[in-house]
Amino acid sequence: MDRPIYVHGYSEKEAERLGDQARTLLGLLHSDTQYPAMSWVLEAGCGTGAQTMILARNNPGARITSVDISPESLRRAESRIRREGIKNVTFCVGDLFALPFPPRIFDHVFLCFVLEHLPDPDKALAALRPLIRPGGSITVIEGDHGSAYFHPESSFAHSAIRCLIDLQKKAGGNALIGRELYPLLERAGYVNVQVSPRMVYADASRPELVDGFIRQTFTAMIEGVREEAVSGGLISREEWERGISDLYRTCEPDGVFCYTFFKATGTV
Amino acid sequence: MDRPIYVHGYSEKEAERLGDQARTLLGLLHSDTQYPAMSWVLEAGCGTGAQTMILARNNPGARITSVDISPESLRRAESRIRREGIKNVTFCVGDLFALPFPPRIFDHVFLCFVLEHLPDPDKALAALRPLIRPGGSITVIEGDHGSAYFHPESSFAHSAIRCLIDLQKKAGGNALIGRELYPLLERAGYVNVQVSPRMVYADASRPELVDGFIRQTFTAMIEGVREEAVSGGLISREEWERGISDLYRTCEPDGVFCYTFFKATGTV
Repeated sequence: MDRPIYVHGYSEKEAERLGDQARTLLGLLHSDTQYPAMSWVLEAGCGTGAQTMILARNNPGARITSVDISPESLRRAESRIRREGIKNVTFCVGDLFALPFPPRIFDHVFLCFVLEHLPDPDKALAALRPLIRPGGSITVIEGDHGSAYFHPESSFAHSAIRCLIDLQKKAGGNALIGRELYPLLERAGYVNVQVSPRMVYADASRPELVDGFIRQTFTAMIEGVREEAVSGGLISREEWERGISDLYRTCEPDGVFCYTFFKATGTV
Repeated sequence: MDRPIYVHGYSEKEAERLGDQARTLLGLLHSDTQYPAMSWVLEAGCGTGAQTMILARNNPGARITSVDISPESLRRAESRIRREGIKNVTFCVGDLFALPFPPRIFDHVFLCFVLEHLPDPDKALAALRPLIRPGGSITVIEGDHGSAYFHPESSFAHSAIRCLIDLQKKAGGNALIGRELYPLLERAGYVNVQVSPRMVYADASRPELVDGFIRQTFTAMIEGVREEAVSGGLISREEWERGISDLYRTCEPDGVFCYTFFKATGTV
């Protein structure tokens, strides 16, 4: 398979955004992913290691293998993990659709913010299933940019968000995949599929979320596609800037922002 | 004040829909509203008593006064409550903006699905505040029709939902009010304002929500404005029927439906 286009790019700033995002959402998304000591865990699509750090820290007894198709992302993930003194992660370059592992070798598979970038998430989930031992599990975490709404309302802000959704679609991905996890896992043959939505609700009484999520995570992510959106003719520069400004406007004391992540588990 | 237009109408079928809705959402919305024995509670805008029953059953020791501007709704609410043998509710016709009670007489005020229908929710919240004793609380529950999204996606379904949002706006209300509860309560002078979103997530693993919420509550509510929407020229009959059919489509085994209610509390 050709390497998929990663809509957010591979810059240092992007790596930093992913780090902020990982810290802010740590409890909400990850705290209930607990793997037993000595279990073999595959993290499929680890990128620059933002989720790897959390997974490894939350599961110090688990033996984690983190794979990604991008050698430079893996290099960053590896140096990050080494810097933190984390010892229970092994890295491996690989294509999710054809991983170099024997059948039923993993107890658990973990994917976070990966399926949204793949042209064929059904195929990826089906390709991972044979790697899991009977009784083992898969855990999938994805966002859904169509779940974003806010106060004050702004059609410009929705248009700016729509640009990222459209660019991600053009790159073969699906930024609205969160809501689809249940049918995706069912179709791929997993059983006992359970989906748990994790809503981020931010108002002035929760300043750490206003800053950590609205500003540094969500709006930063949308801003990341500015040039592509504007020069690609998806939106005028004026509308874009108005949309971004209206997203920041939701950080004011009377603003509110809602976004939902979806966490799904299934067994084999 | 003129009696506000109630966008959902006053039919028997509507009363039944509200009853189904109340039962399905009972735990999600109401289980944490607990008032001490002997406390005086005002339910402002009780309608036909769907929420009154739940409030009274969950708080058998509280002394509840339920008011509404519509005498015929109150009559229905009263006969419903009597039929159920509930003894701790008194009914009273009244205008939320000018209730016939002395200051600081209530320990707690409760409003559920009321502000969304009022042209001036700020004024209503401000008018209720003097009725609450210092240290007393207000609890507000509202939906937000802009929080509805689903799989499979359908622009027709969103257009049908948009009809109800537009009709409610035309009638002076705001079907997107859920997300605004934090600034509304803050502006009205309440303190310690806390908002807790209550997301309804329905997929085939939760058949009681698929039936009780997607079919009998949400889609039934949208269907309730069919004639008004079509004859008012907001949508063609074909698009409307396609939208409703696409909402029912989300009840299929691979469908998913998301909706969020917001529950806010503040103190005086």
